[in-house]
Amino acid sequence: MKIGILGTGAVGKSLGTKLASLGHEVKMGSREAGNAAGAAWAKNAGGKASEGTFADAADFGEMVFIALRGDVVLPVLKALAKSVGAKKVKGKIFVDVSNPLDVSKPLPFPALPELTNTNSLGEEVQKALPDSLVVKALNTVNCEVMVNPSLVNGDSDLFICGNDAGAKRKVVDVLRSFGWTDPIDLGDITNARGTESLMPIWMRLWGYFKTPHFNFKMVK
Amino acid sequence: MKIGILGTGAVGKSLGTKLASLGHEVKMGSREAGNAAGAAWAKNAGGKASEGTFADAADFGEMVFIALRGDVVLPVLKALAKSVGAKKVKGKIFVDVSNPLDVSKPLPFPALPELTNTNSLGEEVQKALPDSLVVKALNTVNCEVMVNPSLVNGDSDLFICGNDAGAKRKVVDVLRSFGWTDPIDLGDITNARGTESLMPIWMRLWGYFKTPHFNFKMVK
Repeated sequence: MKIGILGTGAVGKSLGTKLASLGHEVKMGSREAGNAAGAAWAKNAGGKASEGTFADAADFGEMVFIALRGDVVLPVLKALAKSVGAKKVKGKIFVDVSNPLDVSKPLPFPALPELTNTNSLGEEVQKALPDSLVVKALNTVNCEVMVNPSLVNGDSDLFICGNDAGAKRKVVDVLRSFGWTDPIDLGDITNARGTESLMPIWMRLWGYFKTPHFNFKMVK
Repeated sequence: MKIGILGTGAVGKSLGTKLASLGHEVKMGSREAGNAAGAAWAKNAGGKASEGTFADAADFGEMVFIALRGDVVLPVLKALAKSVGAKKVKGKIFVDVSNPLDVSKPLPFPALPELTNTNSLGEEVQKALPDSLVVKALNTVNCEVMVNPSLVNGDSDLFICGNDAGAKRKVVDVLRSFGWTDPIDLGDITNARGTESLMPIWMRLWGYFKTPHFNFKMVK
């Protein structure tokens, strides 16, 4: 599959490298084509990996991962929708793996107030791309665990939500290819309020466990 | 031990009945002494169970459980601190099992905005009772699971936080007597921001599992 990745940070690189290793054609997008991190990644990730602008990556991918810092997600997507054009992103799957954290504050980061409790970043992403199919996934685990669930001991759980069942099925196929069992499907995109709300305890558990390689498992 | 319970709802009754069955002297407090729910509970729970006002229960207990609806916790505690007197609650352990939910809204309830993200109910409880030892615990599980961890299949995790290590140890002893293994101690009371933030996903998982008898287990 052709896959776009928005963001050249640790999350984008982790996802991009894994997806390229699975045989996908991956284009990593950043603010400027030729960005050092994106170019270095494309060189290392091999023949089917490439880089360009956010718009290039969004145009390229049949599925596009949003792997950006929470505070820049919405400005980037709004600019993107304009520059790529609404037609080209219509019906396209955007997988939002980001969290609405205010990283200008000390750890544990609080949420950006307008994107928590009675709202979520996932919902605002869907509003910014109203004709695209937004799926919230993978935002509750560290980026190394995202693509390698065996970094935590024993089965653990992912959560997924989004308005389109078909888009969620396609994302679940990708998660399975990473080694995950089927995630818990919470329903429509408003349920991003639930999964993004795991961040406050996630960050505290990161301090407690002294490693980001942990996850939640639901038992009943 | 002499234990006070603030609240005669499902949570207060579940905790009170278990604590009485373990041999503790339990006094359940409500807005008015002789409250029907409190009186019926005290009659059923046996010889060492009694009821009275919030102030009676807080005065009685060496350890006092706050089992009230999130929106009434702070008004009740502020009135209590005045009526019982600061001296009598000084050094007393208050176990806050409540969550700052806005139950006037439809399910899944949002948080009361002033008590989430950069604040928490646990912290405000500590401010309302500045000379008492507030421990946040048990607020991440259903009230039947609180006193019977075997209702979920296999070991699962509780979280605890509070400013006083000795108070936390005494609460852990009570949790052990309910059948829990040692909870994850996240540190001081500001970590209530983490544990209270499990509510948005907890309520959605309640819908998903179609039972409140589930819990989180941490794996690493």
